[in-house]
Amino acid sequence: MKRTLQHLAEHLGARLVGDGTVSVAGVASLQSANPEAVIFVEDPRHLDSALNSRAAAVIAGEFATSATGKPLLISAQPRLTFARAARLLHMRPQDLGIHPSAVVAVTAHFGHNITVSPRTVIGDHVRIGDDSLIGAACVIGDGVQIGTQCRIDAHVTIYAGTKLGDRVVVQAGAVLGSEGFGYVRDTTTGRYEQFPQVGRLVIEDDVEIGANATVDRGALDETRIRRGTKIDNLVHVGHNVQIGQDVVIAAQTGLSGSAVIEDNVIIGGQVGIADHVRIEAGAIMGAQSGIPSKKVIRGKGVVFWGTPARPIREYLKELAFLARAAKKP
Amino acid sequence: MKRTLQHLAEHLGARLVGDGTVSVAGVASLQSANPEAVIFVEDPRHLDSALNSRAAAVIAGEFATSATGKPLLISAQPRLTFARAARLLHMRPQDLGIHPSAVVAVTAHFGHNITVSPRTVIGDHVRIGDDSLIGAACVIGDGVQIGTQCRIDAHVTIYAGTKLGDRVVVQAGAVLGSEGFGYVRDTTTGRYEQFPQVGRLVIEDDVEIGANATVDRGALDETRIRRGTKIDNLVHVGHNVQIGQDVVIAAQTGLSGSAVIEDNVIIGGQVGIADHVRIEAGAIMGAQSGIPSKKVIRGKGVVFWGTPARPIREYLKELAFLARAAKKP
Amino acid sequence: MKRTLQHLAEHLGARLVGDGTVSVAGVASLQSANPEAVIFVEDPRHLDSALNSRAAAVIAGEFATSATGKPLLISAQPRLTFARAARLLHMRPQDLGIHPSAVVAVTAHFGHNITVSPRTVIGDHVRIGDDSLIGAACVIGDGVQIGTQCRIDAHVTIYAGTKLGDRVVVQAGAVLGSEGFGYVRDTTTGRYEQFPQVGRLVIEDDVEIGANATVDRGALDETRIRRGTKIDNLVHVGHNVQIGQDVVIAAQTGLSGSAVIEDNVIIGGQVGIADHVRIEAGAIMGAQSGIPSKKVIRGKGVVFWGTPARPIREYLKELAFLARAAKKP
Repeated sequence: MKRTLQHLAEHLGARLVGDGTVSVAGVASLQSANPEAVIFVEDPRHLDSALNSRAAAVIAGEFATSATGKPLLISAQPRLTFARAARLLHMRPQDLGIHPSAVVAVTAHFGHNITVSPRTVIGDHVRIGDDSLIGAACVIGDGVQIGTQCRIDAHVTIYAGTKLGDRVVVQAGAVLGSEGFGYVRDTTTGRYEQFPQVGRLVIEDDVEIGANATVDRGALDETRIRRGTKIDNLVHVGHNVQIGQDVVIAAQTGLSGSAVIEDNVIIGGQVGIADHVRIEAGAIMGAQSGIPSKKVIRGKGVVFWGTPARPIREYLKELAFLARAAKKP
Repeated sequence: MKRTLQHLAEHLGARLVGDGTVSVAGVASLQSANPEAVIFVEDPRHLDSALNSRAAAVIAGEFATSATGKPLLISAQPRLTFARAARLLHMRPQDLGIHPSAVVAVTAHFGHNITVSPRTVIGDHVRIGDDSLIGAACVIGDGVQIGTQCRIDAHVTIYAGTKLGDRVVVQAGAVLGSEGFGYVRDTTTGRYEQFPQVGRLVIEDDVEIGANATVDRGALDETRIRRGTKIDNLVHVGHNVQIGQDVVIAAQTGLSGSAVIEDNVIIGGQVGIADHVRIEAGAIMGAQSGIPSKKVIRGKGVVFWGTPARPIREYLKELAFLARAAKKP
Repeated sequence: MKRTLQHLAEHLGARLVGDGTVSVAGVASLQSANPEAVIFVEDPRHLDSALNSRAAAVIAGEFATSATGKPLLISAQPRLTFARAARLLHMRPQDLGIHPSAVVAVTAHFGHNITVSPRTVIGDHVRIGDDSLIGAACVIGDGVQIGTQCRIDAHVTIYAGTKLGDRVVVQAGAVLGSEGFGYVRDTTTGRYEQFPQVGRLVIEDDVEIGANATVDRGALDETRIRRGTKIDNLVHVGHNVQIGQDVVIAAQTGLSGSAVIEDNVIIGGQVGIADHVRIEAGAIMGAQSGIPSKKVIRGKGVVFWGTPARPIREYLKELAFLARAAKKP
């Protein structure tokens, strides 16, 4: 959707320098910018390239205030302003209603301006809030609650009873609320029988979940992902896990049953977190690190690496020692 | 479904102590129990909390026989009895027939009391046994055989020719019978061409497979998962793999082509098992461990850890040595 | 589809020894061969078993020229010839047209001899080339381009704007063109907001992608997978990643944003490649190895292993030293 720079400046809280009547239609990189694109610069060294690009306008920091050649939007956080500009410019049409090929229970309840795409199945007593979009071929189980302004992409499965807050984004193929991996072994026969998985899954506002990720519901109680947490593709979240606010979890990481991840933790890709682990607020887990069962990781801003995970300084010393020692004759 | 304690005691083989006319509607944890819930206690130290909870009744070991305050179901394996109580109480309605939005080949054959949910596609010559439930939006390929009392959740893909035994559970998004990853490199062009993947996949009775897991069929012969094995979310099983009975495989573990896993093996999460590996009966693979190509792992009840996997005692000694040595000036 | 050996010999460029009128219906292993199967032998030691099997004919190297007992197809690359024979013999019926239960936009454009299977959703301005087959229950977003002779299996999601070349194979449940994992943290509130993910995904000719794999589109520019690359199940490819020609990537490996993988690289299973890593042409990454952010891996034909990845000779020396040192009293 085209916007004038004047409009963008007002909505983004940026300072306009130059012609506000210029229109832009989207965001782009310096390399790919066309004459209707807005780009951004964080580093003063790239300002010249930005001004020489084909872009219509540049979002930049205070350092660019006196630059000439293109209209500028000056912001204290240019990358953030750029991200918000993209949201305004790349907004998708909503309010398409319920496609006739969807299978919708009569007891389902819909807010205003919702979209239910082709082939989606909506169970009994489902509630979907205003301005939410459900993609094609989803399966939304009985009693699921979805808040406002959510976006659920194609082929998502949401098991019965799961609750999603507002502005939740779930990418294609993700599975929410599946049964956890808990078994009881019969000591007489040696066979495994499923421990009850009758809890639920609660996902709070502004959470985003990647493609083909899986999040199990609680066994008897709940699995919960708190406000603002972002989860990448193919991540596994086990039953009873508690994830705090504004946590970031990169692709293919796995969280076993009953793990607790506190607020503002950052977890790299392919990290393995065993059952009943606690990672305290603000810790940073390096990619592929592993945390054994029941361990507590503590240290705001401290990076941990390796399996078992230890402070990265220790781990790097060990690696250096090993490389040296192994070379000796 | 509500049941009296008398009914539960009879069906679970537990000893009733107290009022058998009390009805319960489900299982719960101590914390979440409501007055229609049954809970369980394995550890005598938690008995008092259980008796003081809101639950209607308590499943417990012999240690609780003389407790008062609530009706009790006494069992030698209270956790197992609790799991079985859950199965009785949380039984779902079956026998819903074939939803009109399903696309079903006329040559498909169905047993009694089956459910085929909305939008599911059933291919030619598929056979589905009595009391089985196929979830919404599944794709069941030509010639697939599914036994009795199976539960296939939403969005499951089963490739043509796959065979499932009885009481098999497959969670949402899992893919069964896909083509294995086998290529032949043309030595003149350097290009890869697919090695034939024309075998099949056989899954025996009581196997359970997690959400978004993938299991490839055999290249020329078969991939087989034997009775009672449980596989967690996002696990990968390659072509020609043979998995024994009562094996447990946690989330995100990968088994490469032609690996053999014998009975009663336990495999943690994110374990990597290379091609042609053999893990002999009863071995335990720690999370994130890795077993290189063609290795044999032997040792009933022995825990292996690290990459390459070694007995955990050795591995812990190495870690301890390294931590000590790296600290020296 | 049955073929005479004469026909096979001509189409495969193999030399026929024996009766060319014999018909075969498929490929098989030595063990499972029936009298209509063709098998292959690479190793002269297995020739006798092959000649004594139930197979109709044997594909073998020059070493077998004077063997008797069965018709032979002699080839310099018997495994490759076998693979090509399988393609001829196991060809599937095509040209089934568009199933009436598919939801197809009127602006979509189809080549000749295409198949669109039940329940598939095809968006606006999609283009599908000649002889391509789209499986059941796929969701093909607006503007997607699919070349000729492609095979897209069930439950595949292709996000809007993605482009696939010719002869691309995508297995069930894979997600192509999802949004990358990029966020900007607002320094005043501490909250994450999505960085724009408005680029696209381009997949070139002869690429194959495994079940439940995920490939993100570019953030501002493109993610690209070049000709002939093969990707296994549950692999994750992040935004802006560039993968060269004839690369092989085994199951559950993850490539973070902006990684570059050059031609002919071989990557084992569960490898973790951090953002902005470059792996130069012909390097071989051992299973579970990890490459930290921005590192460059160089060495045609050199195997790297461990986290952080190092030449395998170094890594094995370190492991040997550690095992020895930890055993000392």
